Amino acid sequence: MPTPAAKLDLTFQALADPTRRSMVERLSRGPASVSELAQPYGMSLPAIVQHLAMLEDSGLVRSEKVGRVRTCRIEPTALSLAEQWFNQRRAEWDQRLDRLGEHLQRFPDGEPK
Amino acid sequence: MPTPAAKLDLTFQALADPTRRSMVERLSRGPASVSELAQPYGMSLPAIVQHLAMLEDSGLVRSEKVGRVRTCRIEPTALSLAEQWFNQRRAEWDQRLDRLGEHLQRFPDGEPK
Repeated sequence: MPTPAAKLDLTFQALADPTRRSMVERLSRGPASVSELAQPYGMSLPAIVQHLAMLEDSGLVRSEKVGRVRTCRIEPTALSLAEQWFNQRRAEWDQRLDRLGEHLQRFPDGEPK
Repeated sequence: MPTPAAKLDLTFQALADPTRRSMVERLSRGPASVSELAQPYGMSLPAIVQHLAMLEDSGLVRSEKVGRVRTCRIEPTALSLAEQWFNQRRAEWDQRLDRLGEHLQRFPDGEPK
């Protein structure tokens, strides 16, 4: 079981590519078969399968084969983990701005000498 | 000027490493000199500078040298761009769940035959 930090490594690595981001964008709107997913890109099937493997390794996507069709779905918990990382940064950043604002209200002309 | 997609590539690439994420976490709490930033990691200065260069290339961090001290700051607009990407995915995902919910209310026993 990878640690949360290792999961974030894989998630951000997976998202650092426009094709893979666009696959995640497509799957956020609903499940798709591998051939539906491949359709917009004009890439070889092996290249598509390799991108999908990175998305599956990161936990962002899971797939299931029923009969001859492999269907891919988004895994919202992996997206949430990364989203939370940004939310935490924003919260820290906002707290910092709040502290600066309070400081400026208390000492509008700078620190007392 | 890189396109928004190219910026996201660089941003996610920069964040796909625990040391660089931890530097962004530190800088979200306020500016720091390069030596303050380096302090927790027990890494060589060249290794630290290389991580910082990737963070600066992505636009997540900017730095300024005054006298002998280089001070690093977070660039919140680059964080926002990536945060927005997650917000859009979540919005699409939530819309999909809403549509599924409406569908189930209309056809609780499945599609009419």
